[in-house]
Amino acid sequence: MRWVRFTADGRTAYGRIEGDEVAEVSGDPFDGYAETSRRHRLASVRLEVPVVPPTFYCVGLNYAEHIVEAARKLGIKADLPEKPDVGYRANNALVAHGEDVVIPPDATEKVQYEGELVVVIGKEARHVSEADALQYVLGYTIGNDVSERTWQKSDRTLWRAKNSDTFKPMGPWIETDVDLDSLVTSVRVNGRETSRFPTNAMIHGVARYISAISRYITLKPRDIIWMGTDGHSPDLVSGDVVEVEISGIGVLKNRFVKATAAT
Amino acid sequence: MRWVRFTADGRTAYGRIEGDEVAEVSGDPFDGYAETSRRHRLASVRLEVPVVPPTFYCVGLNYAEHIVEAARKLGIKADLPEKPDVGYRANNALVAHGEDVVIPPDATEKVQYEGELVVVIGKEARHVSEADALQYVLGYTIGNDVSERTWQKSDRTLWRAKNSDTFKPMGPWIETDVDLDSLVTSVRVNGRETSRFPTNAMIHGVARYISAISRYITLKPRDIIWMGTDGHSPDLVSGDVVEVEISGIGVLKNRFVKATAAT
Repeated sequence: MRWVRFTADGRTAYGRIEGDEVAEVSGDPFDGYAETSRRHRLASVRLEVPVVPPTFYCVGLNYAEHIVEAARKLGIKADLPEKPDVGYRANNALVAHGEDVVIPPDATEKVQYEGELVVVIGKEARHVSEADALQYVLGYTIGNDVSERTWQKSDRTLWRAKNSDTFKPMGPWIETDVDLDSLVTSVRVNGRETSRFPTNAMIHGVARYISAISRYITLKPRDIIWMGTDGHSPDLVSGDVVEVEISGIGVLKNRFVKATAAT
Repeated sequence: MRWVRFTADGRTAYGRIEGDEVAEVSGDPFDGYAETSRRHRLASVRLEVPVVPPTFYCVGLNYAEHIVEAARKLGIKADLPEKPDVGYRANNALVAHGEDVVIPPDATEKVQYEGELVVVIGKEARHVSEADALQYVLGYTIGNDVSERTWQKSDRTLWRAKNSDTFKPMGPWIETDVDLDSLVTSVRVNGRETSRFPTNAMIHGVARYISAISRYITLKPRDIIWMGTDGHSPDLVSGDVVEVEISGIGVLKNRFVKATAAT
């Protein structure tokens, strides 16, 4: 099932995708919902970020090749994570499928994508085992963890390098029926494929992260966990269109636009 | 004016403190409110976290003495921040004045407090100058940035060291009338003062942080910025009661309790 959050007729709601239509519900898939008689053409609604999380978790390093490449660029020794320490991103940066990523006017040329699987938590999770962890997942969506590498290197934290406004495209919807092992992530820039990797070839997988986090932290419905990326990105320039596809989930497409002044 | 978020008669609402009473409003100080005729005794309501932020910002290093002390404990060179790079904390960890801080069963003895001024954003802020920045502040409250120093040193991120459930007490209310330069932060453990510092003796102040963040990030109503701490804390043990007082704002009081098993 695909859950979409959308705006139509001046109202933002959740709906289920059925063919080329959206069947609007009242309520939402987290706290409960009821059917309505309202249906919309999928092509005519405005897609919204599929969920705004209470807490926005993000795995920084979770694929071997990406870690080796990132370490090389930063001039440090590659260091594969032995345990699932999770990090954070910020809600201000979220934008939906189809919205522009606005590159700040003083950003350097080192603006890059990271195509990521996003876990959407459906039920409160505390002290759950790896074996049970996936029962707490509502579904999966796609994220683009846009990064300005010069700031990532120069700043004490990732605040503007990873969390400048519009740097976290997420969508287009939440897919609930997913076979993790069969997923493939691919990224295209202006239609040309630039990355491809098996989505689930993670150092620490989804179930391990949920279980580990839940030992200290109560995961809440709507929380999201971005699972990291593999490979590396070319430097993106104004006008580039980036599509992150995860087979079986969908395509997250956003144009990158350099701001010309403080806006 | 003091805004309090509270629960009484099974309803959570905002109210203004008037003497020993709370004058309940409908709505809230962020999106607008209206007076009601409902009044409660302050002593009889349950205080809630005064705001749940869309994004939870936190300044890690903002007072010289704390940086020197932290560097010494981590065995690294002290490095005063030249620019206002902001970090993040997580909503799952928020608890109100009066609630227990639950120390995880496998935490080491290095559990410490950090008494902090908390800025509560009242209006959307983007590209604001330092001179204008304080106009975007609704008011100030108090935070205790509880930290497990062993995990802070061993983990790649601050997830469990700083964001385990209950590690972020905040409250008791939002004070809107504050003269930053006159504030003094003091901390008491079981009634004995263990820290005292002028709250506004920051390396980078509130206005500078708001202005710097807003160059890349839209600050939203309800966002909070924890402004860092000075000095250092003794190691806390189960049963300790920690009070963080900021003169002119109030006292945030929480008991620390070690969990005996997975709960």
